[in-house]
Amino acid sequence: MNRLFHVPLSPFCRKVRLVLAEKKIEVELVEERYWEQDADFLRRNPAGKVPVLKLNGMFLAESQAICEYLDEVEPTPPLMPRNPEERYEVRRLCGWFDDKFHNEVTRNLLYERVNKKITGQGYPESRNVKAGSRAVKVHLDYLHWLLDQRRWLAGDAMTLADFAAAAHLSALDYISDVDWNRSANVKDWYAKIKSRPAFRNILADQVPGFPPPGHYADLDF
Amino acid sequence: MNRLFHVPLSPFCRKVRLVLAEKKIEVELVEERYWEQDADFLRRNPAGKVPVLKLNGMFLAESQAICEYLDEVEPTPPLMPRNPEERYEVRRLCGWFDDKFHNEVTRNLLYERVNKKITGQGYPESRNVKAGSRAVKVHLDYLHWLLDQRRWLAGDAMTLADFAAAAHLSALDYISDVDWNRSANVKDWYAKIKSRPAFRNILADQVPGFPPPGHYADLDF
Repeated sequence: MNRLFHVPLSPFCRKVRLVLAEKKIEVELVEERYWEQDADFLRRNPAGKVPVLKLNGMFLAESQAICEYLDEVEPTPPLMPRNPEERYEVRRLCGWFDDKFHNEVTRNLLYERVNKKITGQGYPESRNVKAGSRAVKVHLDYLHWLLDQRRWLAGDAMTLADFAAAAHLSALDYISDVDWNRSANVKDWYAKIKSRPAFRNILADQVPGFPPPGHYADLDF
Repeated sequence: MNRLFHVPLSPFCRKVRLVLAEKKIEVELVEERYWEQDADFLRRNPAGKVPVLKLNGMFLAESQAICEYLDEVEPTPPLMPRNPEERYEVRRLCGWFDDKFHNEVTRNLLYERVNKKITGQGYPESRNVKAGSRAVKVHLDYLHWLLDQRRWLAGDAMTLADFAAAAHLSALDYISDVDWNRSANVKDWYAKIKSRPAFRNILADQVPGFPPPGHYADLDF
């Protein structure tokens, strides 16, 4: 049985879940309390992070490495373009979200508001939350600028870059930290990706103690 | 003229410099005071980070995206294997170094001791330096374990994973933060990679106020 060890609101886990669902690879989802660094878990992934994917007997870690692997072994639908310049742009944007957006926004909003409480690390630091609220606006404006020139984030086709971005934004949307009225084209892009069958599983997530707002799972938000 | 906007001790810049040199792509190195977030620099890379590579008129950012792009457009010598499982392992290890090693070691040692001073952010926090000193041992033991089973980090051929690791370790070695006596096979691996012509340029780095130790550029260290 294929399994994904994950936590529901982790954007890195969500990116992998979206890619698995697009590729129609069925997995059992297993919630992993990775912060407890349980010995069994560390055997599966010495890095001690989620996601960890058990696929055909192998244990795979690092979300970007997993997603590119999945795209190489299961090319339908393709999530990486063929041309090196276009592939570069997809990887640049995955790096943008998984590094810059993660550090400036996800860490300051989601981790302060949710992860700290779940992992018993206390209360949100208001300085960090303020920095995150400022940064998310700048990032939404950058998305707006990209989508003013392109149908999807990295070009005219949907790619892994769209899933990397949607993984972070959907996790923030779960705690109402995305202002969808800031840009019509960002909202249209998110509506397109949110209505894909691959997204259903993510929209059904429920984290105890943090009920999602009504618009979270609504396709007409 | 191709140009790399960089800082000498940045492991991400060093990874790109090593790949460029292996591929025999000549670039002019331009030191970039990225922390000043100069408007020209932000036009070249809105992420505000180094490295930024100007190549054939394009500006490229995000070290992993740049390295994979360089390997795709200039395949000699190949730094990515052909087989998807082996490619996955290279990318997993690049993620290991650029995320886990970076956060646990590079940030706590190099950034505390050098970057803080250069960017005017004050003195090293001894708690962080201690955490970095503990973590580097764990990582060297992990490298030892890998190299006990493999000639190079990701398998039997030299790959991008070796350059990602060597980029971090060489920057730490510049401030004498790597104990090469901890593992003979890690030392042998580093000696092999350090003696490559692509490494020469990195061994010639000089950062004002931080003279390198004698063994840094010595191939027989």
